[in-house]
Amino acid sequence: MAEHSFDESIRLEPVEAGVLRGKTTAAWANMVGPFGGMTAALMLRAIDMHPERTGAPLSLTVNFAAPIADGEFDVTARPLRTNRTNQHWFVDMVQDGTVTTTATAVFGLRRDTWSDTEKRMPDVPAPEEVEERGLPPVIAWARNYDMRFIDGAAPSKGAGPSDSSTTMLWARDRLGRPLDFAALTAASDIFYPRIYLRLGAPTPAGTISLTTYFHATALELASAGDDFVLGCASANRFSGGYFDQSAEIWSRSGTLLATTHQIVYFKT
Amino acid sequence: MAEHSFDESIRLEPVEAGVLRGKTTAAWANMVGPFGGMTAALMLRAIDMHPERTGAPLSLTVNFAAPIADGEFDVTARPLRTNRTNQHWFVDMVQDGTVTTTATAVFGLRRDTWSDTEKRMPDVPAPEEVEERGLPPVIAWARNYDMRFIDGAAPSKGAGPSDSSTTMLWARDRLGRPLDFAALTAASDIFYPRIYLRLGAPTPAGTISLTTYFHATALELASAGDDFVLGCASANRFSGGYFDQSAEIWSRSGTLLATTHQIVYFKT
Repeated sequence: MAEHSFDESIRLEPVEAGVLRGKTTAAWANMVGPFGGMTAALMLRAIDMHPERTGAPLSLTVNFAAPIADGEFDVTARPLRTNRTNQHWFVDMVQDGTVTTTATAVFGLRRDTWSDTEKRMPDVPAPEEVEERGLPPVIAWARNYDMRFIDGAAPSKGAGPSDSSTTMLWARDRLGRPLDFAALTAASDIFYPRIYLRLGAPTPAGTISLTTYFHATALELASAGDDFVLGCASANRFSGGYFDQSAEIWSRSGTLLATTHQIVYFKT
Repeated sequence: MAEHSFDESIRLEPVEAGVLRGKTTAAWANMVGPFGGMTAALMLRAIDMHPERTGAPLSLTVNFAAPIADGEFDVTARPLRTNRTNQHWFVDMVQDGTVTTTATAVFGLRRDTWSDTEKRMPDVPAPEEVEERGLPPVIAWARNYDMRFIDGAAPSKGAGPSDSSTTMLWARDRLGRPLDFAALTAASDIFYPRIYLRLGAPTPAGTISLTTYFHATALELASAGDDFVLGCASANRFSGGYFDQSAEIWSRSGTLLATTHQIVYFKT
């Protein structure tokens, strides 16, 4: 069986002490460069492959510093501090001597504690009741997902402005690749820029910084499997050429897998 | 006139090429080590003082890697990438050879664009109509603020658990120090741990990673001046010894100055 394009895209090969080399793929390309979610997944993957890594991801912040050209890149993860229950990381991606991407992450051990999900999962129709509708086919990476927008699909030609930037969609890997931390990281950037929805049309925009908080345990991810997850995203404030958005990723059965936030540059 | 303790606490002095030295202060101490918001403000301040800095803060992520002891510490800010309209930074704080804190930040230029605040400011009584009530006096840093809780004050002895982790409070500097980016950064960590509210009692807890998105322009900060700001915070999910919270800081006149998120370690 052919390797899934997601696994091909997050593949990193050791080239020298601590340096891992990867390569962009056509299947996960965005309009310019790779899908930001894939870049974020690669930063996480570099930590995951590090021999000193302990625990599972708790938080990841990825800063998109420069465009990534098609081709090879080097990723280096450095443990900055290891505590009894958590570990702090710095990761950079370099291409032709230029830092394209930086990240910090915290990995940690989870313990049994009091628990509660206070955020409420929206009451939405099942994915089978929602029509499949992706992003425009020019967005290569989006074709890897079966997307079903309940609310806030990408505006069609001639759409008007909207008062709300909220998008809710069911999404799953089209080829049935099960969810893991890398795929959850990628999914945290699955939302097209909220400014499109407000203006009713695309406009130049790009994520500057993406933070994901991982709530899911490995067991919860395994239980989510290859089923649809629900993504919900809303912007808070647009001004001065930037906006921020907050989003949640829910398993179909109602587990809050991740909360994720980003600040985005836009032009109007 | 004596220097304000906030300005004394964020003071950094160059000691060698690129390294800035600061010192903890009793006035901004937390139960253990300094107030996390003050540490975050120091990380931002180190960028602000760097000769290559351009633009104003857009985002800041601070990772609390190790406890900070009372005394001196060194902060180093490194520009990793300068683009036409934004600039990417890495900052670390080191004490006795140990990395206590790391941060990444994006600074940038703001331009006139389409703008809108989509998040709604809660409809709350004016600060003059709300009783002053701070945190327990053992929390030294909190005494620097005039705090007025509209909802979700820190639980008193004998309080029961609560279904909601939401806190809304008016807060301002007690001595009238006007708001600037450093003070806004500090304010983004003004919320005591949400787990206290859910359990109805304090329990060991500490911020692991704090991200702040800056929406305010320098003009908007100047306009907020020394008046009260409204802080609103809620947690999303508590599990495995961690929870995340999302918060907003509003000016009294309704400008969304910052949105801020954190993941917190807790024990029960």
